[in-house]
Amino acid sequence: MSHHDHPFNQATNLTLESEGTWRGNTHPAYGNMVGPFGGITSAVLLNAILKDPARIGDPVSLTVNFAGPLEDGPFTIEAKPVRTNRSTQHWSLNLIQHNGEVATTGSAVFAIRRETWASTEVQYPERAAALDLTRADTSKAPEWTRRYDIRPLRGLMIDGQLPNHEPDAVTEFWVQDDPPRPLDFLSLTAICDSFVPRIFVRRQGRFPAGTISLTTHFHADSEMLNQQGSKHVLGLARASRFGMGYHDQSAEIWSDTQQLLATTHQLVYYKA
Amino acid sequence: MSHHDHPFNQATNLTLESEGTWRGNTHPAYGNMVGPFGGITSAVLLNAILKDPARIGDPVSLTVNFAGPLEDGPFTIEAKPVRTNRSTQHWSLNLIQHNGEVATTGSAVFAIRRETWASTEVQYPERAAALDLTRADTSKAPEWTRRYDIRPLRGLMIDGQLPNHEPDAVTEFWVQDDPPRPLDFLSLTAICDSFVPRIFVRRQGRFPAGTISLTTHFHADSEMLNQQGSKHVLGLARASRFGMGYHDQSAEIWSDTQQLLATTHQLVYYKA
Repeated sequence: MSHHDHPFNQATNLTLESEGTWRGNTHPAYGNMVGPFGGITSAVLLNAILKDPARIGDPVSLTVNFAGPLEDGPFTIEAKPVRTNRSTQHWSLNLIQHNGEVATTGSAVFAIRRETWASTEVQYPERAAALDLTRADTSKAPEWTRRYDIRPLRGLMIDGQLPNHEPDAVTEFWVQDDPPRPLDFLSLTAICDSFVPRIFVRRQGRFPAGTISLTTHFHADSEMLNQQGSKHVLGLARASRFGMGYHDQSAEIWSDTQQLLATTHQLVYYKA
Repeated sequence: MSHHDHPFNQATNLTLESEGTWRGNTHPAYGNMVGPFGGITSAVLLNAILKDPARIGDPVSLTVNFAGPLEDGPFTIEAKPVRTNRSTQHWSLNLIQHNGEVATTGSAVFAIRRETWASTEVQYPERAAALDLTRADTSKAPEWTRRYDIRPLRGLMIDGQLPNHEPDAVTEFWVQDDPPRPLDFLSLTAICDSFVPRIFVRRQGRFPAGTISLTTHFHADSEMLNQQGSKHVLGLARASRFGMGYHDQSAEIWSDTQQLLATTHQLVYYKA
């Protein structure tokens, strides 16, 4: 499969309409229960910046707010560099559909990164290797879940598979694009949203739920991503608080060589 | 001291210029090394939404991007409701100074909250009570630090006070507005940014550093904040990764009755 034929590339493809304005289309391969998978929407928003010739550096922070439902079909992305400094650039993002209504808003910080003193403060979670585990059966789950080879370690909400411990809101898995695809900022962005809502895991069931705001901090640069290639990355997600209709979710994404690639934090609406 | 006389209220005061456009002014009481304390800037941005008659509900998520330096003096805030749903409302924020340049951007999600199943997934950190601890001497630190009564438990970067353990990036303290002021969404927002940059703590020194993006998830509603009144809240901050000029910081803010009020995540530029 050539790079352009990969469904991820098709789903994040954009056509320039005018400076800072891009046309895209939802892709059935990344369909969720209703509309597209939030991770692919985040990725296509980021792509509008990555494709812009005015862009400097790599993404260091991305926030996407899911303001309203996204319908299957065409959309317009407006990506404006609000401010460009010597080594950082701040972007403002909007995704608009046919009726002119804003479905998604966002902001991103890009930066030209350079070597500094470095340290990882959280311990690498030693786990069984991806290829020693069985792939999760997502045949009954939404279409987008079949674009990932998911090897669950803990807390993947699969109907009928109850945990052998007190319920918690923790999920751990290895995840890889299917078909395999070299990791880049776009796929890393999507993977940051590839955990099911924590309420599904904590309460072991399906409830109305959806991400309303998603922030990702990128710790990897392009070189680290290139080193990872298309191998599985390790994802760990947890929650700190469920209450009054909203819960948070924090996750770490690790390379298989113990490098922390991204940390991501979202707020999720739920009914339970 | 009446409510209006409190320096926090003066610093977050806004005057309506036209629908969605507000005028404010930096306040010397919340001055940082250069320009104002980021927490007070976040709070005044949130206030532009709280004061808007079109606003529904309480804040659940706020992201503020520090795009450029803020100068001492007047500023304009544009706060627009991008989309209003039945129970949620998405806002877009810009802070502009005299030259027309955008210094700060942001987005917020407000929601009408209702009772649901609830659970706190992180354990309350039992610590010595605030009033059994000694207040930190911040006489040599920037002005804004003297607007807080800080009772350090661990990892407050005070010159010459070295930790009695291997260096880590953890800070724990009790914090209260000085003069005391009943906790509300504005002061909680500012407190979320009241930790020094993690690089100061991890490396035990001062380095060029500044927050570039700050996201706060609010778990408290107005009732919980009212119960807290003006007592100290407990703050715990840590980092997961320092590298290539940026580090993250995650923090929890707890009430003294073991309620998780907010979790907050920021990305910080540093040179070290």
